[in-house]
Amino acid sequence: MDRKTVPRVVIIGAGFGGLIAARKLATSAVQVTLIDRRNYHTFQPLLYQVATAGLSPGEIAAPIRWILRGRSNVRILMGEVEDVDVSRRVVRLVDADIPYDYLIVAAGASHAYFGHDEWEPFAPGLKTIEDALEIRRRVLLAFELAERQAAESGEQVQLNFVVVGGGPTGVELAGTLAEIARRALVNEFHSIDPERTRILLLEGGPRVLPAYPEDLSRSAGEQLRHLGVEVHTSAMVTGIEPAAVITSQTRLPAAVILWAAGVAASPLGKKLGAPVDRAGRVLVNPDLSLPGHPEVFVIGDLASLKDKNGNPLPGLAPVAMQQGKATAKNIERELRGNPRQNFHYLDKGSLATIGRAAAVAQFGKVHISGFLAWLSWLFVHILFLIGFRNRIIVLIQWAWAYFTYERGARLITGSTQLPSWNQLQSEEHNQTVGRKSA
Amino acid sequence: MDRKTVPRVVIIGAGFGGLIAARKLATSAVQVTLIDRRNYHTFQPLLYQVATAGLSPGEIAAPIRWILRGRSNVRILMGEVEDVDVSRRVVRLVDADIPYDYLIVAAGASHAYFGHDEWEPFAPGLKTIEDALEIRRRVLLAFELAERQAAESGEQVQLNFVVVGGGPTGVELAGTLAEIARRALVNEFHSIDPERTRILLLEGGPRVLPAYPEDLSRSAGEQLRHLGVEVHTSAMVTGIEPAAVITSQTRLPAAVILWAAGVAASPLGKKLGAPVDRAGRVLVNPDLSLPGHPEVFVIGDLASLKDKNGNPLPGLAPVAMQQGKATAKNIERELRGNPRQNFHYLDKGSLATIGRAAAVAQFGKVHISGFLAWLSWLFVHILFLIGFRNRIIVLIQWAWAYFTYERGARLITGSTQLPSWNQLQSEEHNQTVGRKSA
Repeated sequence: MDRKTVPRVVIIGAGFGGLIAARKLATSAVQVTLIDRRNYHTFQPLLYQVATAGLSPGEIAAPIRWILRGRSNVRILMGEVEDVDVSRRVVRLVDADIPYDYLIVAAGASHAYFGHDEWEPFAPGLKTIEDALEIRRRVLLAFELAERQAAESGEQVQLNFVVVGGGPTGVELAGTLAEIARRALVNEFHSIDPERTRILLLEGGPRVLPAYPEDLSRSAGEQLRHLGVEVHTSAMVTGIEPAAVITSQTRLPAAVILWAAGVAASPLGKKLGAPVDRAGRVLVNPDLSLPGHPEVFVIGDLASLKDKNGNPLPGLAPVAMQQGKATAKNIERELRGNPRQNFHYLDKGSLATIGRAAAVAQFGKVHISGFLAWLSWLFVHILFLIGFRNRIIVLIQWAWAYFTYERGARLITGSTQLPSWNQLQSEEHNQTVGRKSA
Repeated sequence: MDRKTVPRVVIIGAGFGGLIAARKLATSAVQVTLIDRRNYHTFQPLLYQVATAGLSPGEIAAPIRWILRGRSNVRILMGEVEDVDVSRRVVRLVDADIPYDYLIVAAGASHAYFGHDEWEPFAPGLKTIEDALEIRRRVLLAFELAERQAAESGEQVQLNFVVVGGGPTGVELAGTLAEIARRALVNEFHSIDPERTRILLLEGGPRVLPAYPEDLSRSAGEQLRHLGVEVHTSAMVTGIEPAAVITSQTRLPAAVILWAAGVAASPLGKKLGAPVDRAGRVLVNPDLSLPGHPEVFVIGDLASLKDKNGNPLPGLAPVAMQQGKATAKNIERELRGNPRQNFHYLDKGSLATIGRAAAVAQFGKVHISGFLAWLSWLFVHILFLIGFRNRIIVLIQWAWAYFTYERGARLITGSTQLPSWNQLQSEEHNQTVGRKSA
């Protein structure tokens, strides 16, 4: 086949949406180029397990080249996309221009601080493997610091872990931190009692998991409290300092602050030239194409589309995966001379884990809580994890953790020096020390 | 029991020697304080597996507190030892002084560049988890860079990986890199052929594995060549530049340079005030005590002691473990009023792995090579790995890798930008970019 006549499809981003689109197009008569700044796909739903030392990065990530190995029409480029020139139909990397006939933009989202980027060093968010390792470092170092201080002074400082944001990520982080403090570290410290750690979850709205039905939110709140988390709703954060969170009501001293309160779409969205919503998501056509540019599609967390009831589609893996598949199909249809179809999200249910044997699940009108919801969560996440080996290993890690309360990856990497409490909040410390000792 | 009358044993370093000593003393009437700059014990014999993307850090390391959990007379302090004041019997940390009645110094060794510390950025060594991740980053990035360059220019650059040093670490790194290039990456690249990567192993002496009998060295060399490694003996490295290794014969361009040519004992050795050998190891008494200070013991890679034939004991885990045990026993003996015993190393054999189904082993006069030696190596390393869960998971990873040639942890973490070939050699790049993107 003449290479020049084969349509070139470029996909930006190897998250759930981009990867599914690439897989689907691998059997079509197109030349696919998948661009990602990483060499691996991250299974984001389990990132919190890396942040809380339950799993190692390699267990929830898989090399993109390996996932798409043997697909002779899929080329993978590791690189950072700087811009897209929709008029010239070219994707701009730092060091190369990649032309396309079709473009699928699946660049995702990152955490956002609502105009307070100065909070980031004190309250890291959780979107990448590096974020997860930094959170793990801070959490584990906090216990070590407290132990050292108590050994010298004879008094235990109050360890507060504050999680800002009561959505799924905040809930799973808070629940798992409670398990670490209450169970995983028992019998390991002499001068402090890790059980005296306070885990606080701050949610600005009236209830946790606001996207879920009210009864499940209520249940999630109860399950969190049962695990030992102090849940504060209607708690608006007005400031974050090196070791404190300020809300409209109070000032909370905090050894570790985690940010799970907001996401913003990739800045690439704005560069496409079409209108975006407040979070920077591109307002796409019903077939996920960019207004004015039918050859460009935007999918996943970067796309803003409403379902048939007028509610915006949530930023979830199933949405991105269905969109990736639908877009690949529309490109195939068009190449065969058939008309495109509009995207309709099929909601198969949603699951949020809270901690050990604690979760909520919604399958249509069926709402379940607790152990059964947690088992469903486990099953679905093992099923969708990429790579059979990762599935086996994660299953073993979880079974082990369930029966022993141990967590498999409790390593403090990066810094080799104990920081002060204020230094603990700063990545700067980690990197300076890392460099010095290197 | 009155706390003040209980002898205080301080152990510096939670490597093989320090850990065994702490475990043994946990059942004695002493108060043990174990100090390490890390919160985890690293199973060093498998570090090369992390460097070559076969295992994740969490799979070969275990938290020290967890290993020694429930031992009520063993206190663990995470901290960096600055100095030891043997006259005042105090260990100095940055922020605290720890007094002792007995001291066991097990601070180990690091890699050394024979007075050429300026080579380190271009040729990292392998002693810590961070070292391993940096090596992994460079190796994987080199293939990505070559692919990008070939996609643009249409020509494949020659990828050379140069390993300096033909001891056990150099041999296992070179053998495993060959497997990655020849097998693990097949079918994953479109513009380059990873099999065309050259793996060069440079050894200054006349044969690889110089500490092994000659027939095993010869066999190791053959097994390396069979795996695709170019072995150069009597190749003295005289210079290392950003992307080249200079030997007395030639100048080798190199995408990745790894240093496995020398170790130096921890600088703590010199601070003890007793004579040290050229590598900085303390010349200890036959009972492993510090000359002039019977209450101080030096064990493991930091100690220099000769066996009954007058040969220096090698820097191996079994030596450190036997010394840790012997020292704990001597302290117990002395506290019961019995005389100390001199240390004698019981050589149960040695094993060096080379790669897939390739290894050499020496058990007394029995020398074996190839698959059987490799199986023995696997068995011993699974057996000594700490933590039952880690054993299961490493076993699964290895079984999987054996049958599929896949490697489980092929993630490039740290930098999100492709460096230039020269930048690839510099950790600075990794950290600068990491900070920018954080």
